[in-house]
Amino acid sequence: MGQRARFVVALPFLVLAVTTVLAQPPHTDGAHGGGTNGSQWIHQYREPAARLIGEAMGSTFAWQRLSVLTDTIGNRLSGTPALERAIQWAAEEMKRDGLENVHTERVMVPKWVRGSESAEMVEPARHPMVMLGLGDSVATPADGIQADVLTLHNFEELDSKASQVRGKIVLFNVPFTTYGETVRFRSGGPSRAARYGAVAMLIRSVGQEGLRTPHTGALQYAPDAPKIPAAAITTEDADRIQRLADRGSRIVVRLKMEAHFEPDAESANVVGEIRGREKPEEIVVVSGHLDSWDVGAGATDDGGGCVVTWEALRLMKKLNLRPRRTVRVVLWTNEENGGRGGLAYRDQHRAELARHVMMLESDGGVFRPLGFGFTGNETGRQTVRVIATLLTGIAADQINAGGGGADIGPSVTEGHIPAMSLDVDGSKYFLIHHTPADTIDKIDPVEMAKCAAALAVMAYVVADLPQGLGQ
Amino acid sequence: MGQRARFVVALPFLVLAVTTVLAQPPHTDGAHGGGTNGSQWIHQYREPAARLIGEAMGSTFAWQRLSVLTDTIGNRLSGTPALERAIQWAAEEMKRDGLENVHTERVMVPKWVRGSESAEMVEPARHPMVMLGLGDSVATPADGIQADVLTLHNFEELDSKASQVRGKIVLFNVPFTTYGETVRFRSGGPSRAARYGAVAMLIRSVGQEGLRTPHTGALQYAPDAPKIPAAAITTEDADRIQRLADRGSRIVVRLKMEAHFEPDAESANVVGEIRGREKPEEIVVVSGHLDSWDVGAGATDDGGGCVVTWEALRLMKKLNLRPRRTVRVVLWTNEENGGRGGLAYRDQHRAELARHVMMLESDGGVFRPLGFGFTGNETGRQTVRVIATLLTGIAADQINAGGGGADIGPSVTEGHIPAMSLDVDGSKYFLIHHTPADTIDKIDPVEMAKCAAALAVMAYVVADLPQGLGQ
Repeated sequence: MGQRARFVVALPFLVLAVTTVLAQPPHTDGAHGGGTNGSQWIHQYREPAARLIGEAMGSTFAWQRLSVLTDTIGNRLSGTPALERAIQWAAEEMKRDGLENVHTERVMVPKWVRGSESAEMVEPARHPMVMLGLGDSVATPADGIQADVLTLHNFEELDSKASQVRGKIVLFNVPFTTYGETVRFRSGGPSRAARYGAVAMLIRSVGQEGLRTPHTGALQYAPDAPKIPAAAITTEDADRIQRLADRGSRIVVRLKMEAHFEPDAESANVVGEIRGREKPEEIVVVSGHLDSWDVGAGATDDGGGCVVTWEALRLMKKLNLRPRRTVRVVLWTNEENGGRGGLAYRDQHRAELARHVMMLESDGGVFRPLGFGFTGNETGRQTVRVIATLLTGIAADQINAGGGGADIGPSVTEGHIPAMSLDVDGSKYFLIHHTPADTIDKIDPVEMAKCAAALAVMAYVVADLPQGLGQ
Repeated sequence: MGQRARFVVALPFLVLAVTTVLAQPPHTDGAHGGGTNGSQWIHQYREPAARLIGEAMGSTFAWQRLSVLTDTIGNRLSGTPALERAIQWAAEEMKRDGLENVHTERVMVPKWVRGSESAEMVEPARHPMVMLGLGDSVATPADGIQADVLTLHNFEELDSKASQVRGKIVLFNVPFTTYGETVRFRSGGPSRAARYGAVAMLIRSVGQEGLRTPHTGALQYAPDAPKIPAAAITTEDADRIQRLADRGSRIVVRLKMEAHFEPDAESANVVGEIRGREKPEEIVVVSGHLDSWDVGAGATDDGGGCVVTWEALRLMKKLNLRPRRTVRVVLWTNEENGGRGGLAYRDQHRAELARHVMMLESDGGVFRPLGFGFTGNETGRQTVRVIATLLTGIAADQINAGGGGADIGPSVTEGHIPAMSLDVDGSKYFLIHHTPADTIDKIDPVEMAKCAAALAVMAYVVADLPQGLGQ
């Protein structure tokens, strides 16, 4: 924090204000201390911001790059050859873009393998079910698990019906409200049910109602509970089971899963930079995660986040805009089932965490951008609010509470670093999240270009600010 | 037609008009000949129509019945035990409803079996594809067909690139516009491509863009072309192949299908009636098809059509409304891949086709009803327009051109019978048509009740009309 405090002084701000904003009326904002009282300093950034936006919006480069990644390489689960190909491809492409200090940083990642899997209703009649095993689940025996289904709606009901659970397949049929509210059943449900003797767990997919669309995602086994296999079924199949249960039918399901772990595999975070012209040792990180689930093409989650944050640097390079500080793009490995990439960065970069001015992660899709989430102090918030005014033309000027991300989390926490995320129109996100339908056709090239534009402007100005963001 | 002409006389119309509509102002409509000059006769039907609508809208009986069919029996491809169970269940339930002359009429149907199937992109990289074999397709060899993909957009392009087709898998990547416009490639594409030496055919699914959703449906092999296996792929996979092709990539796909025919199986149309109180030998048919594809639950296509047309009779029975003529519900077998049910009805009922006053089929879903399609002469059209005014309260009062249906078609054609269909809001239909997502949760119980109400009123009044519909 000491390093950064040097920038929160009035002098550079005043010099810049005087030299670059002579035509502007005097500022009327009250003084809030630090470098963000008044906002004339922003005017110097109008011209580079306009260039970055124009360059981003002048082509569909970002979408085309994502299309190459998702069409040719496809989905990229940790430990797969596809993720390794994506890592090599990204590093080569970054070099081709002219980014600096391009390299990969080795990370050992878990290798979970789905194998063949199926679920079938056996009673009251035989119906195939559409399912996806949950990430990190164990397998069933080779001939499957066949058992009665007990349909539950929350953990309280599980506790109150504890005596009925033994030997059953527990279905948590919890309608999607928010991700935070419903993902608890995916993460914690298997161990909660297993403690009462359940032999397997099913969940209603954590997502909006789709078209017989199952949503995978990681579970988390508790250390003190038996590990039972777990899978997501579609809302349609969950509704059917519920109706049959409500009519008093006995429901029997057979679940077969080959899921298992193989030895940890070598993987990497991919890093590229635009080195700062004055303070290259100070760093602004923008990032997405390159790994994905093993279904769909990993376009929205999170190939798009990788490409648009990487675009911030490509656009600066293309326009020869080199900010005071270093802008670093990191494409994380293993966000989906382990978070090893984010942990490795924290450990490998511990010595320079204090010189990280801001870390941003884009992992909510690259739909129509609304602005940014921000977590940090009030001085920093005021500063990014002012920067965001540069984005009113593309309607991406909101600054909302709650910036952050799973991969930047460990570093942000340890380094007390201001954290941001790209905020977008999320109305379609949980239709396709962790599903076979996460493909690039769901992404509009123009909206994606806007995301890249917004990120480029935010990253450039934060990295160039005479003052810091405040920590 | 001679039989029906007897009812197109003025006397009964005038008597009824005088006795039941004394309070109404004199009609001002011009005389159009036959029984539809003026429309005062309709007023006698306001009270029974209101009772039918009230009874239909007073519960979710129709939706619950469809739910039992689709949850417990599920999908019902011709020749399967599931279809046989559905036939027995429907006949038993019709008897329980108190319908008259309930019976099944034997029909031998083709038995096409999908077996296991898959498609995988092999070059430029290995990606599983989401597919459904087309109904009536032949199999690939056991180890599949692996070949280069030639992407085409219409039959003209096929003809112009004839020399490139031999040994290839042809993909018809035709974006969905209307069903009629795009289903041609599903039906006729395999033989068109096979004549030029294609080894298999893929089509972009005939349907709206979904969530990696494949749409099956029948193909029709030409007698003079080699039979090649054919399957539908998702719009997402078709788009990916197109992008790769546009970038100049060589695309290789491996297709594996076990599809085959087994010997014809015994099946049946299910028939129930409300016998006419004056002219029981004259018949109004309302109908849907009980068979479905072997994916999803056959809810919209066409379990819903079966239940709402059957409801017309159940509601009359419940309210003790017995029209002059017989109302007959027919639940057809084998609409999807053979049409044997409709052909058998024509043959088995040839002697009484001339006494069919009208035939209606509901096979477009049971979404929000708009009204009816009608095919017949102008007198009949005027009459059903007047009847439809009874449905303004539920906004189902449109009479559009083009009533008919695949199953009623043979009888309608041979007997020159006025034909109708239920017209509904079709905006969701081709999202789920022939897909695993054709499940009851897509159907709103209240809209479905409105469909039943509209059908009950139309069927009752047409069957009770002193005059006929005109043929």
